[in-house]
Amino acid sequence: MSRETDDLMDLARRQNPETEEDLEDLALGEDYALNPEYVPMVADALDRGDTERLRDLLGALHPADIADLMGFLSADDREELLPHLDPEALAEILSELDTEIREEILEHVPSATLAKALGEMESDDAADVVDDLEADKRAQVLAAMPDVERAAIENTLAYEDETAGRLMQREVVAAPQFWTVGQTIDHLRRESDELPELFFDVYVVDPAYKPVGAAPVSHLLRSRRETPLAQIMEQVTEIPVDMDQEEVAYIFDKYHLISAPVVEPGGRLVGQITVDDIVGVIQEETEEDILALAGVSDAGRDAGFLGIVKSRLPWLLVNLVTEAVAVTVIGPFQPMIAKIVVLVMLIPIVSSLGGNAGTQALTVAVRAIATKELNAANAMRVIMRELAVGLLNGGAVGLMLGGALYLWQHDWKLSLVVFLAIIANLFVAALGGILAPIVLERFGRDPAVSSSVVVTFMTDFFGFLALLGIAALILL
Amino acid sequence: MSRETDDLMDLARRQNPETEEDLEDLALGEDYALNPEYVPMVADALDRGDTERLRDLLGALHPADIADLMGFLSADDREELLPHLDPEALAEILSELDTEIREEILEHVPSATLAKALGEMESDDAADVVDDLEADKRAQVLAAMPDVERAAIENTLAYEDETAGRLMQREVVAAPQFWTVGQTIDHLRRESDELPELFFDVYVVDPAYKPVGAAPVSHLLRSRRETPLAQIMEQVTEIPVDMDQEEVAYIFDKYHLISAPVVEPGGRLVGQITVDDIVGVIQEETEEDILALAGVSDAGRDAGFLGIVKSRLPWLLVNLVTEAVAVTVIGPFQPMIAKIVVLVMLIPIVSSLGGNAGTQALTVAVRAIATKELNAANAMRVIMRELAVGLLNGGAVGLMLGGALYLWQHDWKLSLVVFLAIIANLFVAALGGILAPIVLERFGRDPAVSSSVVVTFMTDFFGFLALLGIAALILL
Repeated sequence: MSRETDDLMDLARRQNPETEEDLEDLALGEDYALNPEYVPMVADALDRGDTERLRDLLGALHPADIADLMGFLSADDREELLPHLDPEALAEILSELDTEIREEILEHVPSATLAKALGEMESDDAADVVDDLEADKRAQVLAAMPDVERAAIENTLAYEDETAGRLMQREVVAAPQFWTVGQTIDHLRRESDELPELFFDVYVVDPAYKPVGAAPVSHLLRSRRETPLAQIMEQVTEIPVDMDQEEVAYIFDKYHLISAPVVEPGGRLVGQITVDDIVGVIQEETEEDILALAGVSDAGRDAGFLGIVKSRLPWLLVNLVTEAVAVTVIGPFQPMIAKIVVLVMLIPIVSSLGGNAGTQALTVAVRAIATKELNAANAMRVIMRELAVGLLNGGAVGLMLGGALYLWQHDWKLSLVVFLAIIANLFVAALGGILAPIVLERFGRDPAVSSSVVVTFMTDFFGFLALLGIAALILL
Repeated sequence: MSRETDDLMDLARRQNPETEEDLEDLALGEDYALNPEYVPMVADALDRGDTERLRDLLGALHPADIADLMGFLSADDREELLPHLDPEALAEILSELDTEIREEILEHVPSATLAKALGEMESDDAADVVDDLEADKRAQVLAAMPDVERAAIENTLAYEDETAGRLMQREVVAAPQFWTVGQTIDHLRRESDELPELFFDVYVVDPAYKPVGAAPVSHLLRSRRETPLAQIMEQVTEIPVDMDQEEVAYIFDKYHLISAPVVEPGGRLVGQITVDDIVGVIQEETEEDILALAGVSDAGRDAGFLGIVKSRLPWLLVNLVTEAVAVTVIGPFQPMIAKIVVLVMLIPIVSSLGGNAGTQALTVAVRAIATKELNAANAMRVIMRELAVGLLNGGAVGLMLGGALYLWQHDWKLSLVVFLAIIANLFVAALGGILAPIVLERFGRDPAVSSSVVVTFMTDFFGFLALLGIAALILL
């Protein structure tokens, strides 16, 4: 009964969610994701032009949740929502949005509003947004910003996309190595307004502004005032400003870094990268790999209809061409197939099994390369192991299929053909699955992008050849 | 010339790497990954039993790199290497190792050494290691540990695997809400030895030890001593102790958290999770998805030969069964195929294109579900968009294939058959690719694990039916 009463009260509250607290409860599910029911409530308020209700609804959300909400709204609703956001909220939301929606939204935000919002953001986030602007608007927006902020953004944009320079924030806390803990804390209290909002390390620098160590803030807090910084500082891992963001993420993950100093070629400290930026990079990079493995070029959930077609059609056409080449193997065997028609049903099975086994092997290899767990030191051992797995799995699956076929066709020769063809094809799948990524990587190509095409072609071409060739030898 | 001299000097240095600095240069590549050449150097020293050389070689490596090295060595070499590691090094290396290698290594470490090493680790890492031990050894090792440490490990193990309770460290820094910044800093200096090695927030708690806010240490450092904690503290996002680690990672990523308090059902503070643990969780969870999508059950690079077979064979057998069912569609059409043999070459093409288009759609859907970007609020819009993409891509690919076929066979009816079959199949692929993950998720299954099987079956079954059915209608 208590349970039912709860449900009823819950229902009543949802139908008339008046207080701010109620809205906050309603906004997020138990998993902290935006509640699906909340989206039509916002859409409804937008339709009715109910500004007050909208302010309450948005007020119950964290900017990250408003960014999520944007993704669930239709493009029209998104455009209508924009004028209801003040520049500070807009700044935070823009930093959180996926590129596609951000580009779409940026078209509708007036340059003056945008210039104000950019001023609220950290230099790396602001640069990302400016990078998404079209040339005309970019010039307008930058012209409307104060000189210092514009310069910071332009400096950041001078670094290549997806490098440490683009990822870093320029705001760092540095102290000379001869300072004590007390001097450092006094300095921080004095300069409080100039400091980054959050920081985790004070970088200890030499007179040339090169980092010689880092004092974690928790160590500063617990040390006595007279302790020299040099005594509590720890070794730092310097990140070169032109390092690829994937490498940066690897280093953070490997050494469990919280923040790291970014240095110019001469070794001078120019910024810092913090681990919360790295979480985003890791998501981005593995997401790229997952989509590339599935033959989807870079395009997010929020790409428009044509964006999605563009991200998938090229790979289907490549697949069409390679498959058309692979089936030419079948041509010369057509007379035999016309006689032994059951082969028609075996062709797709052999092709499908080969494709699956190849995908298994290549996915494991692609990930091992991405996480630097596969290189020259163990390549030979891994290759031999894959081939052995291919043979064993081929034997097992071949035995199953050959056996089942015998029960149906009572033709041991046909079963033998299938048994041998499956072993051959799963061996080829293993060979292609492990070699394609290794070779592509060696030649500087991204193994996640092209391995699938190569391996599918190999397993179909050799699979058809094995099945029909062995059939010709044994059955004719 | 200078380049050549460099190379020569490089070579000379590598052949006789005497100083510690030289070894450090040699150990890691520019990408901070372990240099492949370093592995045989270690293996060689192990073979020769050259303890001193081994100490130098290992001394040049960070524990995380020694863990990497372990992965590249053969199992025999790993076992030989163990006695050369002291308990502190062993503790750090064990925390870094992949499960498979760790389990293998743990068998060879004496219980007493292990007990000592566990004492050096944080409670969450130590619990992970103990969890990997076999029952007998676990009892021995725990018995050899001091009571307090044993209790901490047992408490952590009482929480389910992959929950916040297992991920958290019990060591936190908390302060009552009526304290000032100065009181807090004095307390930290006094209790320095009892504090966690690194911390990023001081949790402000009420008398019932429930967190009411968090003061970032960088805010403590820059605030005046007399400032009340309540004035600089920020809102906290509490993590329930039984929350799944995937949810925890979602929250950290969404709100850019550096650390978060973990609370018991009553709201009492019991530990904290820091972002560096989350980086590992994100890697783990996306890795699981990537492998599941490729039909590989959980098994890392370092699984033994049989482990790999076990991780892949079941999916191949499932694939065999579904494919065997799908090809039964071909059966009734065999007489037609014997007459129009070119259909044999079209069957694999239709199957392959359908499989690819399905994989594209399902991968995007699986990821959108995993990142909570696809739910009831936008499902209908996403489904309609996928179906439209399927029709358009089907039309484009069908036109290409039909056209090419016409140039070869000069039979417009056959081209029409292929054109229609491809459109139908890519429509089915889109339908299956988007619906399978959504439906599986709705029924509480992991869409990454089983979607591929469902979609491949659908595209093959309906692909064959479309091609041969339409052929029978138009060509016979």
